[in-house]
Amino acid sequence: MHPTTGVLVCFEGGEGSGKSTQSRRLRAWLETEGYPVVLTFEPGDTEVGRELRRLVLDPDTGALDPRTEALLYAADRAEHVARLVRPALDRGEVVVMDRYVDSSLAYQGAGRDLDVAMVERISRWATDDLRPHLTVVLDLEPEEGLGRFAERDKIEGEGLAFHRRVREAFVAMAAADPDHYLVLDARAPVEEIAAAVRARVEPLLGQARR
Amino acid sequence: MHPTTGVLVCFEGGEGSGKSTQSRRLRAWLETEGYPVVLTFEPGDTEVGRELRRLVLDPDTGALDPRTEALLYAADRAEHVARLVRPALDRGEVVVMDRYVDSSLAYQGAGRDLDVAMVERISRWATDDLRPHLTVVLDLEPEEGLGRFAERDKIEGEGLAFHRRVREAFVAMAAADPDHYLVLDARAPVEEIAAAVRARVEPLLGQARR
Repeated sequence: MHPTTGVLVCFEGGEGSGKSTQSRRLRAWLETEGYPVVLTFEPGDTEVGRELRRLVLDPDTGALDPRTEALLYAADRAEHVARLVRPALDRGEVVVMDRYVDSSLAYQGAGRDLDVAMVERISRWATDDLRPHLTVVLDLEPEEGLGRFAERDKIEGEGLAFHRRVREAFVAMAAADPDHYLVLDARAPVEEIAAAVRARVEPLLGQARR
Repeated sequence: MHPTTGVLVCFEGGEGSGKSTQSRRLRAWLETEGYPVVLTFEPGDTEVGRELRRLVLDPDTGALDPRTEALLYAADRAEHVARLVRPALDRGEVVVMDRYVDSSLAYQGAGRDLDVAMVERISRWATDDLRPHLTVVLDLEPEEGLGRFAERDKIEGEGLAFHRRVREAFVAMAAADPDHYLVLDARAPVEEIAAAVRARVEPLLGQARR
């Protein structure tokens, strides 16, 4: 169920892969080109989402059941799409997202050994099947990405094997649907990555408002 | 996926139908008979659940997207079953619950016009398909139940038509599976209702620890 107007571009990848840097780069370029842009992120970019993000990521919460965690991410996503993402797309704007459904599939599914098919089904239902026009995967060895953080939250504190499964999941999703994915080596220079992203986004902008 | 020991009895019904009174009555009787009992409720009877309950029911939260709301109830339920209900059943205890899956089906499904099949599927996944041995529906005209409250939270403040759809949903679920349901007129004297509940629960207790 794509909206008829607007363009949705998502950045995915492990911790420290440069998603927020590249999201901001893309926004800056789109704005200089005259497009209205909404830059947003999951989890947590709504009023309720901020409380859910705190619940899920705060080490003080203690261990949540993996299904509880998956459902909290889905609730955050439902609110985010309904309140923020879909309205912007309906206005014909470009929405740039830092993490989306694929993060749940990679982290909650592959990472925590839940039934991936059901995690995906719940996310599709939560979003009324809103899918990105393009997902950019910033691919990086977990060792490199995690090295960039001194303090780690609950997700970042998982073992290396967990983060390897997450990385493999992202790459496998991209390989299965090359028309809607772009995989880039996150170790490349920032400007080189930004240019590769622009080259893939530019042809998609025909349906966006300017 | 029933546990091999323990007995799960749930009370369902509209606002003001006497669920908590009857839950406590049943617990008191079971205890005098020598059974270890856990009395619990949804939403909110875990640490995380209390925060979710506040988010969902507090009028200050503002209107949540109906899917967000359904997913938050499911998250609460996943945590509740994994941390509290299933461990008690595994110990062979009797668990008495004030609201369970049927409340989501009645309120989020029938009440808010969401896809009931998907709401049910999510709840079944959240609970790893844990089903009650008996569900007692305390049936009441919404006009009577709501009259018992002076201040109303977000759910209680919905219109009468909403609460009529909720009531019809409970009665329909019971009619479809009479072996696992007992429908009682909530206007009957408290002791009469309690006796009818005991009569249906007693034959189920063979597998409980004493």
